[in-house]
Amino acid sequence: MEKIEHIGIAVKSISEANKTYEKLFGYEHYKTESVDGEGVTTSFFTCGESKIELLEATRKDSPIAKFIEKKGEGIHHIAFSVKNIKSEVDRLKKEGFVVLNEEPKKGADNKWVVFLHPKSAHGVLIELCQERD
Amino acid sequence: MEKIEHIGIAVKSISEANKTYEKLFGYEHYKTESVDGEGVTTSFFTCGESKIELLEATRKDSPIAKFIEKKGEGIHHIAFSVKNIKSEVDRLKKEGFVVLNEEPKKGADNKWVVFLHPKSAHGVLIELCQERD
Repeated sequence: MEKIEHIGIAVKSISEANKTYEKLFGYEHYKTESVDGEGVTTSFFTCGESKIELLEATRKDSPIAKFIEKKGEGIHHIAFSVKNIKSEVDRLKKEGFVVLNEEPKKGADNKWVVFLHPKSAHGVLIELCQERD
Repeated sequence: MEKIEHIGIAVKSISEANKTYEKLFGYEHYKTESVDGEGVTTSFFTCGESKIELLEATRKDSPIAKFIEKKGEGIHHIAFSVKNIKSEVDRLKKEGFVVLNEEPKKGADNKWVVFLHPKSAHGVLIELCQERD
């Protein structure tokens, strides 16, 4: 784990949440991006070497829609950046972590991403991410 | 906000969670510290410029015990480091954030801390922290 790449926050309205986080940070988000496969629109704010990723569901069966229905708005996941996602997944599997998608998939902000099940990490949904070439 | 200072994770057993996060990071935590006022024991792992703070309740009326009772183990708060906590609190109050403790209190790892109410920030409990002299 090189650093906290971002913290993902599930929100009902990204336009409302953008306003809140603009006030918090005192500056604007640097991008909006939709990830169709995940059914989400994202908005990114930088903070030091890390980012805050706001996540709004684009359809009812999106994981973010289900999360908000169950738990309300709030922190959804922590993403750690790794140099080699495949070797990290192998290592963590051997350590007993439950991997949700063995094959890295395309995430927002030009990343390959793999998720670890929250039951592996005391209720925390962990994302590993590696920059795409 | 200079950076993400740490992410606080509520756990039932800090000794069990230490084992999990040692496996995740591949190295050990750098300190354990109790904060009597908050009714918690904490354990810190570094990750880039940030930290992961594991939090175990030391008594039943601890905010961490209540959190776990209500929501289960998981991410409890995000802490941002600030240079001048008092001026940041003033600024954020004017922006409409609800401050939980106006007067900074002593937190773990040599910090002055102020919390913002989750209802101000789309379900996210935000901690501001400044290094103590």
